[in-house]
Amino acid sequence: MKMTDYQNHFLSADFLLFSQTAKKLYHDHVVDLPIIDYHNHLPPAEIADNKKFSNLTEIWLKGDHYKWRAMRTLGIDEKWITGNGSDKEKFKTWARCVPKTLRNPLFHWTHMELKNPFGINQYLNEDTAEAIYSHCNEQLRHDSFSTKGLLQHFKVEMVCTTDDPIDDLRHHKKLVAGSFGVKILPGFRPDKALNIAHKERFLAYIQSLSHVTSVSITGMDSLLEALHNRIDYFEEAGCTIADHGLVSLPANFAFTKELEKELEWFLKSGNDKPFSQPEAFSGFLLKELCKIYHQKKWVQQFHLGALRNNNTRMFGLLGPDTGFDSIGDYTQAERLSVFLNELDKTNELGKTVIYNLNPADNEVFASMVGNFNDGSIKGKIQFGSGWWFLDQKDGMEKQLNALSNMGLISTFIGMLTDSRSFLSFPRHEYFRRILCNIFGEEMENGILPNDEKWIAGIIKGICYDNAKEYFNL
Amino acid sequence: MKMTDYQNHFLSADFLLFSQTAKKLYHDHVVDLPIIDYHNHLPPAEIADNKKFSNLTEIWLKGDHYKWRAMRTLGIDEKWITGNGSDKEKFKTWARCVPKTLRNPLFHWTHMELKNPFGINQYLNEDTAEAIYSHCNEQLRHDSFSTKGLLQHFKVEMVCTTDDPIDDLRHHKKLVAGSFGVKILPGFRPDKALNIAHKERFLAYIQSLSHVTSVSITGMDSLLEALHNRIDYFEEAGCTIADHGLVSLPANFAFTKELEKELEWFLKSGNDKPFSQPEAFSGFLLKELCKIYHQKKWVQQFHLGALRNNNTRMFGLLGPDTGFDSIGDYTQAERLSVFLNELDKTNELGKTVIYNLNPADNEVFASMVGNFNDGSIKGKIQFGSGWWFLDQKDGMEKQLNALSNMGLISTFIGMLTDSRSFLSFPRHEYFRRILCNIFGEEMENGILPNDEKWIAGIIKGICYDNAKEYFNL
Amino acid sequence: MKMTDYQNHFLSADFLLFSQTAKKLYHDHVVDLPIIDYHNHLPPAEIADNKKFSNLTEIWLKGDHYKWRAMRTLGIDEKWITGNGSDKEKFKTWARCVPKTLRNPLFHWTHMELKNPFGINQYLNEDTAEAIYSHCNEQLRHDSFSTKGLLQHFKVEMVCTTDDPIDDLRHHKKLVAGSFGVKILPGFRPDKALNIAHKERFLAYIQSLSHVTSVSITGMDSLLEALHNRIDYFEEAGCTIADHGLVSLPANFAFTKELEKELEWFLKSGNDKPFSQPEAFSGFLLKELCKIYHQKKWVQQFHLGALRNNNTRMFGLLGPDTGFDSIGDYTQAERLSVFLNELDKTNELGKTVIYNLNPADNEVFASMVGNFNDGSIKGKIQFGSGWWFLDQKDGMEKQLNALSNMGLISTFIGMLTDSRSFLSFPRHEYFRRILCNIFGEEMENGILPNDEKWIAGIIKGICYDNAKEYFNL
Repeated sequence: MKMTDYQNHFLSADFLLFSQTAKKLYHDHVVDLPIIDYHNHLPPAEIADNKKFSNLTEIWLKGDHYKWRAMRTLGIDEKWITGNGSDKEKFKTWARCVPKTLRNPLFHWTHMELKNPFGINQYLNEDTAEAIYSHCNEQLRHDSFSTKGLLQHFKVEMVCTTDDPIDDLRHHKKLVAGSFGVKILPGFRPDKALNIAHKERFLAYIQSLSHVTSVSITGMDSLLEALHNRIDYFEEAGCTIADHGLVSLPANFAFTKELEKELEWFLKSGNDKPFSQPEAFSGFLLKELCKIYHQKKWVQQFHLGALRNNNTRMFGLLGPDTGFDSIGDYTQAERLSVFLNELDKTNELGKTVIYNLNPADNEVFASMVGNFNDGSIKGKIQFGSGWWFLDQKDGMEKQLNALSNMGLISTFIGMLTDSRSFLSFPRHEYFRRILCNIFGEEMENGILPNDEKWIAGIIKGICYDNAKEYFNL
Repeated sequence: MKMTDYQNHFLSADFLLFSQTAKKLYHDHVVDLPIIDYHNHLPPAEIADNKKFSNLTEIWLKGDHYKWRAMRTLGIDEKWITGNGSDKEKFKTWARCVPKTLRNPLFHWTHMELKNPFGINQYLNEDTAEAIYSHCNEQLRHDSFSTKGLLQHFKVEMVCTTDDPIDDLRHHKKLVAGSFGVKILPGFRPDKALNIAHKERFLAYIQSLSHVTSVSITGMDSLLEALHNRIDYFEEAGCTIADHGLVSLPANFAFTKELEKELEWFLKSGNDKPFSQPEAFSGFLLKELCKIYHQKKWVQQFHLGALRNNNTRMFGLLGPDTGFDSIGDYTQAERLSVFLNELDKTNELGKTVIYNLNPADNEVFASMVGNFNDGSIKGKIQFGSGWWFLDQKDGMEKQLNALSNMGLISTFIGMLTDSRSFLSFPRHEYFRRILCNIFGEEMENGILPNDEKWIAGIIKGICYDNAKEYFNL
Repeated sequence: MKMTDYQNHFLSADFLLFSQTAKKLYHDHVVDLPIIDYHNHLPPAEIADNKKFSNLTEIWLKGDHYKWRAMRTLGIDEKWITGNGSDKEKFKTWARCVPKTLRNPLFHWTHMELKNPFGINQYLNEDTAEAIYSHCNEQLRHDSFSTKGLLQHFKVEMVCTTDDPIDDLRHHKKLVAGSFGVKILPGFRPDKALNIAHKERFLAYIQSLSHVTSVSITGMDSLLEALHNRIDYFEEAGCTIADHGLVSLPANFAFTKELEKELEWFLKSGNDKPFSQPEAFSGFLLKELCKIYHQKKWVQQFHLGALRNNNTRMFGLLGPDTGFDSIGDYTQAERLSVFLNELDKTNELGKTVIYNLNPADNEVFASMVGNFNDGSIKGKIQFGSGWWFLDQKDGMEKQLNALSNMGLISTFIGMLTDSRSFLSFPRHEYFRRILCNIFGEEMENGILPNDEKWIAGIIKGICYDNAKEYFNL
């Protein structure tokens, strides 16, 4: 298959590197660093089974709600997105859309992912779709394109997945047993146990949790016992990281005796009416969980600010995580302060990463972390990398600049994919190029010292060393 | 009259075009495109009458609250702004102020508007005021400087004005009859019918509406009947666009039987006390109006986030829209979601444009539109161009970048003037230059493909083709 | 001591000046302008006593919570920050940290302050610490490095400090008597008198105020009398500027008869329970104070949006202003509008500067000032320069751009240090370079007229002339 080169610097070796110094930083110091992907949504089963993918649509379009949103915006019928269209037709439909996605991160991601690992150096469009599809499908048959093969190809050193407390972690255990050079760790994400406001789902979940732990959950104490039980279980499987998805951090921890009684009745009687103070319940429970994380020296993450499931009609058809989520505009500052302080008061605030979805709040987040960095651990409280909608050039630059101006970028633990796809690792390359470009330009124009060794040390820290130290790898 | 050239690139042919590619894009593909001005506040009477203006003050300073604000900031007495100073003195006062307005969009607008249509290539200031005033006044006598002449000069293809439901649209009708090559369409803006909180004005308005429609308005049903009646009337006059100015979208639609009774009494008895739940009233009514727009395949626009009439003292002297309005910091995300979803649930959400006044909310707006683009129509839900205070280089760039990063800029319907002045059309040129500049730079540095045909197609779409398709022109 | 030059443009004569025009603007028009530092926290006692500093730690690290935060983020134990470590060890610890602070304003400030006044042209780090420490300590012994010497060295023309109403201003009086060419004015900051919510501190404060004024404070009238008394006292000492630190401006002024009774009892009985409506109390009181300022033609300043004292544990150890403050995300627009309008209604709104801590609100602040610029005084209502966390290149540029786009930068009164340190004056240089750079670039690319005289006039206004006029110096 003939693969014409792009006409200009697009995706060249110096892609996004706009100064000589940026090029030097990237090519001499960064390009070969391994990847620590400390938060993503990769399915452990597919790694444990060393799954291969039957075609490019399966590995690339299935489950990718970023692409789905773009296609819907272009007026594509759902049949060719999540419907019963054939894999090939779905791919060709996406290919037709790609030229219309430019300036959205999808356009860069698409071509970076085709280039690495598939070696494609052509724009994807109507004309090239057929050839690219068969070229990639051909490659997907090779062992090096299995899930494990891809992780090795991308020099991934560690992956931390996102798992429910009731998960049995059998895939993670299998992966420990038959190690293939990449650490695959579970990540503890107990969102369902906190979400009492979603009654039916909550009660069903408590039953499962009770079943898995053999703890009869009748109130807060037994609920905490069951969760502690699972935290221990996760720890045995190598887990050192927890994660929470919330609109904002709780600021109410007053789980009173009355609420305890109500909870007991709620758990016993089922869902005749909603729990009266869901915030006090989840505030108290989250606080107690965080104390356990602190005891175990885990890292806790908080993903804040998403406004999810906006489209009821499409939710009915497709369920959650299908491309109908959005950036919220919640107030965050006081709640961040109250929650982190609540743990800090008793010196039980452990390593913490807070992720922000609304770029207008970057400075709030970046200044907040400084209030709880207490000299005990370098970069103890982290302002996480540009998340979800902000995981693009402009979003990353804004996060990097806010963190630099309000805090210390030199202590930053850097990039993660947060992705469900085995093809998303080039986003680390994207981040690293953008990072080198920022520093390189400022070295050349005298905003930063023009000292390659000094700056390269800091950049390598952000790309790799800091995370390695932070997560004790 | 001698007209010295500007000393540098200021307002040159390549104004704001900072790369060769940007210049090529603009001059080879964009410069001659017609204008679709799908939302403005031009007075239809002045078009129908093909009005001529007696002097530059009348056409340029009267009603321009942007200029008034600037003059007040510079310490100019109201006499020379809206007071009884002579037209000539007012002009000379403004001319003295202009050199102090630089970096405000007024400075660019002023000189762009003097250049086109008047052919002035000089800075306006104290020294040039006299000559420029007489030069322009001379030109204003020519037929080509009548309202119709100006619209033709600027290659305006369509204008959509902003009209009250009770307007008789006689000017629009006259314009249809004696067409002069520019489509002048009415825009349906029923703000007064929704604003029940402003009691006296509301009740007086309902009387007028009742009178115009011959519908006795005694409750919600008859109010809706009257408005539907006017929507039909507007449709007959060619209207396909509605518009609403709101602080934020309503999220309460519970117009109960009790409220219906209260409304009936409110309408019957007059204004002894305020209506108890204005939000439920306007939420329900707006929702019903939007269903009618959907039925008629109209486009609905929402201008959100303005904090108006901040200065009571000056409001008493000059009334609304005189330069005392501001950018609000309302929460928008959940209300946008709830309102659009309410219509979408029953598949009655039509084409929609949401305009944002606070740049901190750009990403909220840009990500929200993606939740309701459902594959039925390309770019069905639009994040509108930088509005009012944001209608300047920085504001436009931020809107274009947010839309690009969170959505698809290729489907964008582009610029509109939102202006009360026949001299504001160069703002389309301003927008187009800024747009070409962004794309051109990214083509040259390899962020975008360096493919002129491809990119020019997208840019032409944004400047003209997309709007033409969106508004079925 | 050998002082190697920096390797590149870092801190060169053209530092931050990226165009020929920017260099020309700065070097030919700005570099020699005096400084009007109209708001800072310099201790008047240290000026009056013409204090000298025993070493670099005393003048530079003591009280600098910016540096402390950075050190804590780098994992430094409190002993070497605010603890009982020796001054020399503290300095060496800071020196070790400096190379890790790059991209934070501390990195630039540190080297600018070492360069001027100390003449150091080397990076501060572990290797250079010893030599720099002794070099600077040596210089600190000279008379030119006393507090007065430093103010003269930096060409400071006026300093306005921040003083409590009960302060006796004896240092200011001494400074008037023995003038040394720099105007040292007191600034009236009555925060404690407004903060009734902080019971014990409030009541203790009222006692002191009562004592100082010999006014028996039993209710609102006598409280106002006492404060008016102090305003007169401050005025006699040359004060023309008031300042307030608030989360947001009050919007409730309804201090009813019931509240008056409650206040009387509150003042009489002590603190058995909290005052029921602290907002109404402070709203009313602030409004009355502002009327007095207006009468006296003072300038009033409002510093808005800080979220202070987030870390209870560290507050217990170190007290306030020790590096545990943050950027808040309060809603500001309506409160700004209501408060300023309340004073404007009766034409009692005087010159006002509003400072914003959250960059997401820049456009809200920048557009708000325009509503109350009424033509009476040029630039009467000011949007203040980037404050605290925003007092850095990115923060300044955002403030300058928002102000330019929404208002008139030509009327801006420019920079102030807001600092507690006698070494912070290079921040004026920092601001001026950034300002010249913005204008210079836009002159070269044709966004602005390439007219040096015109633009230099505006820049000199922002750097010096406007403040001189605004503060009647």
